[in-house]
Amino acid sequence: MKQIDLSHLKDLALGSVFLATGGGGDPHVPLLITQQAIKTYGPVSLIAPRDLKDDAFVVPIGNVGAPTVSLELLPSVDEAARTIDAFEAHVGRKVDAVASFEIGGGNSLIPIVAAAGKGIPVVDGDGMGRALPEAQMMSYAIAGVRPTPALAMDYAGNIATFETDTTEVYERHIRSFAMAAGGMITTAEHAMTGAELKRSVIPETLSFSIQLGRTLRENRGQAEELIGPLQDVFAPSIYGQCRLVFQGKVIDKATRIVGGYDVGEATIERFDGASTPLKISIKNEYLLAVLGERVIASVPDLIVIVDYETGTPINAERLRYGHRVAVFAIGCPDFYRTPEALKVVAPRCFGFDLDYVPLEDL
Amino acid sequence: MKQIDLSHLKDLALGSVFLATGGGGDPHVPLLITQQAIKTYGPVSLIAPRDLKDDAFVVPIGNVGAPTVSLELLPSVDEAARTIDAFEAHVGRKVDAVASFEIGGGNSLIPIVAAAGKGIPVVDGDGMGRALPEAQMMSYAIAGVRPTPALAMDYAGNIATFETDTTEVYERHIRSFAMAAGGMITTAEHAMTGAELKRSVIPETLSFSIQLGRTLRENRGQAEELIGPLQDVFAPSIYGQCRLVFQGKVIDKATRIVGGYDVGEATIERFDGASTPLKISIKNEYLLAVLGERVIASVPDLIVIVDYETGTPINAERLRYGHRVAVFAIGCPDFYRTPEALKVVAPRCFGFDLDYVPLEDL
Repeated sequence: MKQIDLSHLKDLALGSVFLATGGGGDPHVPLLITQQAIKTYGPVSLIAPRDLKDDAFVVPIGNVGAPTVSLELLPSVDEAARTIDAFEAHVGRKVDAVASFEIGGGNSLIPIVAAAGKGIPVVDGDGMGRALPEAQMMSYAIAGVRPTPALAMDYAGNIATFETDTTEVYERHIRSFAMAAGGMITTAEHAMTGAELKRSVIPETLSFSIQLGRTLRENRGQAEELIGPLQDVFAPSIYGQCRLVFQGKVIDKATRIVGGYDVGEATIERFDGASTPLKISIKNEYLLAVLGERVIASVPDLIVIVDYETGTPINAERLRYGHRVAVFAIGCPDFYRTPEALKVVAPRCFGFDLDYVPLEDL
Repeated sequence: MKQIDLSHLKDLALGSVFLATGGGGDPHVPLLITQQAIKTYGPVSLIAPRDLKDDAFVVPIGNVGAPTVSLELLPSVDEAARTIDAFEAHVGRKVDAVASFEIGGGNSLIPIVAAAGKGIPVVDGDGMGRALPEAQMMSYAIAGVRPTPALAMDYAGNIATFETDTTEVYERHIRSFAMAAGGMITTAEHAMTGAELKRSVIPETLSFSIQLGRTLRENRGQAEELIGPLQDVFAPSIYGQCRLVFQGKVIDKATRIVGGYDVGEATIERFDGASTPLKISIKNEYLLAVLGERVIASVPDLIVIVDYETGTPINAERLRYGHRVAVFAIGCPDFYRTPEALKVVAPRCFGFDLDYVPLEDL
């Protein structure tokens, strides 16, 4: 079993922003909290899914709500562990390990904070392999793990629990509680056995994200120089393919809030102004890249926009007119290419009138 | 101990619409459900607050949400009892009796449905003595009863529980769950001992509402003929004063939805068109009656509008241009004239810039 200590956290946060494909929220505050938790409670054990006992009791934990809220409503270092405490009291059972909802963004870090405070391991893996906006898009839900019993805690220690059969209904309930509780809550949900986790988790994404962050840090520089090291990291991973698909300047970007999402589009023109601009459709995450009539990449594959000069990934809410950027397209884990997964994460699930074609076939 | 059987239900529903002061929702569907529950499970024991043991465990139960939803999303006859079942499982304790949130409107009937299904008594009393829009305005909350542990169930059997210290926060959480769950839920909350109930309940309003309904039925007719019998009923009750303050025709009525409430105004002109019209301010309930510059009655005292010819009370959502109506003003129970109660139910709590003056002093 490996450990996560202070030295891993900045790379993990950086890798997680990359894998967040524009969404997932800013990990700045979660990073500070995680550093504090490890300083206070010591390093956290990282357990590979295959090393979990089949009858272990594993609970994914993370934040639900509007990430920007956490910049004002600072969580405490004990909030995640207290959420697990309350969850244990609710279900009458000790939690053996925590797992992550999504490796993309701040939710890669919250389980580490919980694990540190509770003195239990965190699973090396997550429920998305990226960031996606809704609970039913998690691999745990797709693989049939029940969303409840679930417990949510807000900044003030107020608690709600939920009992429902489907993750779609659960998503509606938990989202509305997040809004009523001030915009951001910590939830423990989709609890499962070790055996269930093994068939539903996107494996080893936590250690991968650390490796990816280190690669980005050590190869900080222009996109053409970064693509080689990135391909070296992605090729042997569950993601596979990584392509540098576009470089240029953001000439337009507009999003508006529709049904609780940031929905809109960014347009990127080549530096020389030549040929057709690239259009990126946004619904919290970068979901679709289209050049003229041609689809370059689409969800569930990963579309990542980075600063052209440094390779630093840029969140959708920070992307602005004039940004000089590079766009990468990366294959998604096989799990998300199964018919069961595509039922909830194909482009049509986000309102785009097109079928999913894997990156390699485009 | 008395019983509530089928013969009481129509009078109870009619009395409750009167005491709802324009709000509280249409009791049509709750009446049908209650009739069905009593046909299925038999009459329900009505227990006076003073007859409760001090260590009895009493739970108020009722609907939270938009009353109109219940006209489409019909509740089942077992929903209220199943909510108590789930509440008992949640807190690990048997419920000895159920009580009502508010005597005004459909929530006077839901506890009877629960009591019938569970075979336990319903308390003769409620938490408002009328209808009011928010949980923190309940006498239970004002007297310091904790809102949680609380449990909510929706039409599909989905469950949420809540744990929080203040009724103001609880109100926000439960209201948002009601919206997320389709617009209407059944909740069990503000659980208390018999001793706590005795000092927080508005007593004997259930049997009073039956008596009031009978009076309205037996004296169906024009307002001038109804006022005598009404005064005979109200004078010896916890309400006291009952005045016929206006008769005329609705010449204007407009409400719009603001923050989840129906907010607006009705204007009523004397039949002969002479003198100043009466203005009624509405926020779900009829809250303020003003003639020119003079306040005729204000919340927490009761303002009731009835059909002029029959004395049938008219809900705010049904009040329309051209309606020929009579307006009654009725004193509120002493509990609501205490400084603690006026902190949450005085006219200023509803946005009106005036102090409360009891009906008798106006």
